[in-house]
Amino acid sequence: MLSRAITLVESQLPEDRIDARRLLEACVPHSGNSLRLAISGVPGVGKSTFINVIGQHFLMLGKKIAVLAIDPSSERTKGSILGDKTRMSELTAMKNVFIRPSPTSGALGGVARNTHEAMLLCEAAGFDLIMIETVGVGQSETAVAHLVDLFVLLVLSGAGDELQGIKRGIMEQADLIVVNRSDVSKKAQLLTTIQDLKNALHLFPANEKGHIVDVLSCSSTTKENVASIGDKIIELHNKLSKDGSLEDLRQQRSIKLMRQILQSRFLEVMRERLVQSEVEQLEAKVEASELTPYQAVDRLIERALST
Amino acid sequence: MLSRAITLVESQLPEDRIDARRLLEACVPHSGNSLRLAISGVPGVGKSTFINVIGQHFLMLGKKIAVLAIDPSSERTKGSILGDKTRMSELTAMKNVFIRPSPTSGALGGVARNTHEAMLLCEAAGFDLIMIETVGVGQSETAVAHLVDLFVLLVLSGAGDELQGIKRGIMEQADLIVVNRSDVSKKAQLLTTIQDLKNALHLFPANEKGHIVDVLSCSSTTKENVASIGDKIIELHNKLSKDGSLEDLRQQRSIKLMRQILQSRFLEVMRERLVQSEVEQLEAKVEASELTPYQAVDRLIERALST
Repeated sequence: MLSRAITLVESQLPEDRIDARRLLEACVPHSGNSLRLAISGVPGVGKSTFINVIGQHFLMLGKKIAVLAIDPSSERTKGSILGDKTRMSELTAMKNVFIRPSPTSGALGGVARNTHEAMLLCEAAGFDLIMIETVGVGQSETAVAHLVDLFVLLVLSGAGDELQGIKRGIMEQADLIVVNRSDVSKKAQLLTTIQDLKNALHLFPANEKGHIVDVLSCSSTTKENVASIGDKIIELHNKLSKDGSLEDLRQQRSIKLMRQILQSRFLEVMRERLVQSEVEQLEAKVEASELTPYQAVDRLIERALST
Repeated sequence: MLSRAITLVESQLPEDRIDARRLLEACVPHSGNSLRLAISGVPGVGKSTFINVIGQHFLMLGKKIAVLAIDPSSERTKGSILGDKTRMSELTAMKNVFIRPSPTSGALGGVARNTHEAMLLCEAAGFDLIMIETVGVGQSETAVAHLVDLFVLLVLSGAGDELQGIKRGIMEQADLIVVNRSDVSKKAQLLTTIQDLKNALHLFPANEKGHIVDVLSCSSTTKENVASIGDKIIELHNKLSKDGSLEDLRQQRSIKLMRQILQSRFLEVMRERLVQSEVEQLEAKVEASELTPYQAVDRLIERALST
């Protein structure tokens, strides 16, 4: 039923829009009662395997778990989707677990919207721990980062260069950094990686939630540290819930998200109303210094508003 | 006449718009034949005094000089405008010099547009060296940075901390950095400042114009290095003109500017169509988790498009 509800909400068909809107309006008041968690990291870092083991730890603590995967690599190759299912095979087979692969909508901003609405439906269905698997790149992913309460970044151990793969923006989102695959790393290298990450974190402004970002090692194979990472996540979330800062954070982000969506939707409307050939003609005149950019824009705006 | 033309183009009065547009359309084809130079730096760094002396050097080389000042600090206090005139008193009194103080329009993006159009009018009037005085902060100033061919950043000598006042963005714009007031700086401190700046420049990606950014000291009082800085500017500009990269740069920037203006103008128009009280009502519903940000935006878009 939840799966069909998500499909309805994701639907681009005009005849589904009214039902989808009604469904969401009924569900939204029952949403919000979950720990919203992003599990992020570059492809190959081991996100699915990590979710498979930490999910089992959360289950043992009595949580009902939904996993929403939005790794764009799994959209591209069927192999990758199958791979994900294999890597989460234990979790997939368990009770109180719901796993939803990538939304397939390729519309601008569609992935972020679909993930947001799928999350609300999962919450209304009683799931109280939502894990969103994301590669943490691109605009949609940044929007997703703002959907969650806690952002866990997975990285691999390496000789210092692993930092190069990590964008500054994604480091700033992180509430917890996990150096994955500790079982196949050399001890000295692992410690260097952890220290490098801690040093790098010092360069960033304080986390908006006001806690120090921890760097922990982990092995999804031997399950080393998995339980303590799970406990750490729940402890952080409880702290945020209790002092009211979680509610503040969600409210602020909702308003910010609303403003961002409004702006991007307006720009979509603009693009729809502009005639491409006219834009190109005016651009050519600007390039040839026959018109100033301002004059060209005056003409385009006049046209866009008259349609 | 030039002064009245600029006033007409800056005018916000609806009855002036048609004349202004006609005037610009007549002038734009005669524009573009100048060296467009930004002189930037924090208030107090000595921009006006520097323009006063380097302007005289350019005059000796046979240039006709227009100075457009858009330092927002001179908009605020009358004292500052008087101060500017005093500091440029020699240049102001000379032939082949046109000096225009800050545009007073406070409209969103208005300063950048006014400066752009004033520059084109100056060019059409035969001025072949335009100096734009700017403090290099804020969105308007960034737009101005994209109007010019060469961007000169003035800084003061100090014990290393002077770098803190310089935003990364403004360093990336610079084609030439001038450490001003060398006459009142200790020699050792001056050399340290120059070295620090050179080191900092190494951290930035290569200048879009492909030349190495030089750091030179200068005194507007003793005129030390003023002539060689002037020659350096003309040499850089000749190099860019000869290999065609100046034309490419101006074209690319015009198109980029046109797209930026188009977006911001369209967003302005759409925001005007929103009823503020409705926006606030919907924001309150989003904050109270009664609506998702996406649902709230759907409603606002529907309303904005139906008016």
